[in-house]
Amino acid sequence: MRNRQIILAKRPRGMPHLDTFQFVDLPLPALQDNEVLLRSVYISVDPYMRGRMREGPSYTAPFAVGEPIHGGVVGEVIESKAAGFEKGDYVLGNLPWQLYTAVNPESLQKLDPEIAPVSTALGILGMPGLTAYFGLIDIGQPKEGETVVVSGAAGAVGSAVGQIAKLKGARVVGISGSTHKVEYLKKELGFDEAIDYKTSHSLVHDLKKACPKGVDVYFDNVGGSVSDAVMPLLNDFARIPICGQIALYNQEDLDVGPRVQTFLLIHRALMKGYIVSDYAPRFPEARHQLGKWVQEGKIKFPETVTEGFDKLPEAFLGLFRGKNIGKQLVKVG
Amino acid sequence: MRNRQIILAKRPRGMPHLDTFQFVDLPLPALQDNEVLLRSVYISVDPYMRGRMREGPSYTAPFAVGEPIHGGVVGEVIESKAAGFEKGDYVLGNLPWQLYTAVNPESLQKLDPEIAPVSTALGILGMPGLTAYFGLIDIGQPKEGETVVVSGAAGAVGSAVGQIAKLKGARVVGISGSTHKVEYLKKELGFDEAIDYKTSHSLVHDLKKACPKGVDVYFDNVGGSVSDAVMPLLNDFARIPICGQIALYNQEDLDVGPRVQTFLLIHRALMKGYIVSDYAPRFPEARHQLGKWVQEGKIKFPETVTEGFDKLPEAFLGLFRGKNIGKQLVKVG
Repeated sequence: MRNRQIILAKRPRGMPHLDTFQFVDLPLPALQDNEVLLRSVYISVDPYMRGRMREGPSYTAPFAVGEPIHGGVVGEVIESKAAGFEKGDYVLGNLPWQLYTAVNPESLQKLDPEIAPVSTALGILGMPGLTAYFGLIDIGQPKEGETVVVSGAAGAVGSAVGQIAKLKGARVVGISGSTHKVEYLKKELGFDEAIDYKTSHSLVHDLKKACPKGVDVYFDNVGGSVSDAVMPLLNDFARIPICGQIALYNQEDLDVGPRVQTFLLIHRALMKGYIVSDYAPRFPEARHQLGKWVQEGKIKFPETVTEGFDKLPEAFLGLFRGKNIGKQLVKVG
Repeated sequence: MRNRQIILAKRPRGMPHLDTFQFVDLPLPALQDNEVLLRSVYISVDPYMRGRMREGPSYTAPFAVGEPIHGGVVGEVIESKAAGFEKGDYVLGNLPWQLYTAVNPESLQKLDPEIAPVSTALGILGMPGLTAYFGLIDIGQPKEGETVVVSGAAGAVGSAVGQIAKLKGARVVGISGSTHKVEYLKKELGFDEAIDYKTSHSLVHDLKKACPKGVDVYFDNVGGSVSDAVMPLLNDFARIPICGQIALYNQEDLDVGPRVQTFLLIHRALMKGYIVSDYAPRFPEARHQLGKWVQEGKIKFPETVTEGFDKLPEAFLGLFRGKNIGKQLVKVG
């Protein structure tokens, strides 16, 4: 069996390219006692990983140049020298972008394919689902009849946010980047309205029409000018969870735009950044609730699955061109 | 006795001028049953009043053109036809800028000059003190050993914020607009550091020096570029009460600057606008605590007193040139 990994070849300036990554052949790892040998089944690509390609301080340590990229991976145990793990078990881990990996399973989470497809451990029941849940429930706190706007609405986090907000009785308006996605949000995910910001002549105008009672919660996945357009529509005591700023991840210049402070002051609104790991003690609560909604068919979990380990860099780059609907995964052959 | 009032002559564009105001002679009000006749003793001028000179929606109704400006006034009862009020009583009310006013005292608050000078009802024990208290305690939540930065530090609100933060055990750094104020903050009010933003070559640099452990609470009284300079210094889980934006009150152009969202995201920071009246149910708690601190000599309440009703417009305009230290009052002859 041939093993391969993908390393960070160099730190990107602005938008990463294929040459940001380098494929490296390496031997199959020799399995030690108390380790399992994993075959990568699904590898997650996530926008936040762009931040780790930077050198500067952020909320996660940067990837090292010359070292493998790592992130969420669902693996299948193909050999085990660790108690409690058997060949055929599926696990979730924070693992290198690699075909085969030997690890001590202490940091792994065993998955039960009976409960939900194992890919959901990287999506609705994993980091993106938890991110949607805590940002919306803990910071956004939508109430019945309120209006929730979510940007990046067709992505892994946004699609979950909108559906959870619907379950909480809110009117949900999504902002997304294609006609296809807008249709998908309305027809498949039950959003009340969806706006294609790329073809909108005036996002403020279109948002106003879609939110006749103003905006109570703005779940901000993207930042930049899309978010600017929501500010004039805030209601008193609005809440704005700042989840991601994908519009800015590849920007090298200073991010300049209309200041938000006056809007926050006039409307006594709250804006708060958060990172899902801050909520780790409450993960069981969220996993339980999300799992219940999934099993009851109350939440859909769209996935865009790219086939082949060699397509990993392209799948990652596609995130910034808005290629995916729902969770972007790479299925390893 | 001659009576006079000051009306809003026209809505200012940008910075108001003396011709924003007009003095009008009027007869002494005829006292009705259940009314008191008040002589204005102290009239308050406050930055937020600039917002009420605008036509657009804000958190308080706009002043009408041709109608008297009104706001916080401490008056002395000179005649009473209302039960419970006697000649010589001091009261606080939201009243017109006028020498003599007849009102039903239902909306008035009686003041006890034994507890504190009656002027404090417009300052440390009034709206500015309550604004400082709730923004800092409820949103800022400073903890022992944390660093609190306050802008507009020498003003009525800022001077109270800094002193309360000291009482809570924080390191306090003030940003202010003159050498004189900076000295005052450090020598008289016990601020750990104070920076004159007008003479600073690099506010970020000077703030970094004054806040070696970063910024946990930024009490934002001013907005604009002064506030921009604080963002890069935020610590994780920082809190930013947005109290006022005096730098912007007279600005007609769109307020543009570095977007704050990325800072809030990276540091999981909270930014929240608020208005003191939202805390009305908790005013008794705050008045009790502030009164205690004042009586124990733990909080100073600097005042800048301008003499003469005819100087009211100038005293108001002076707020935007940073003329005052502490609460700006006009004492009526």
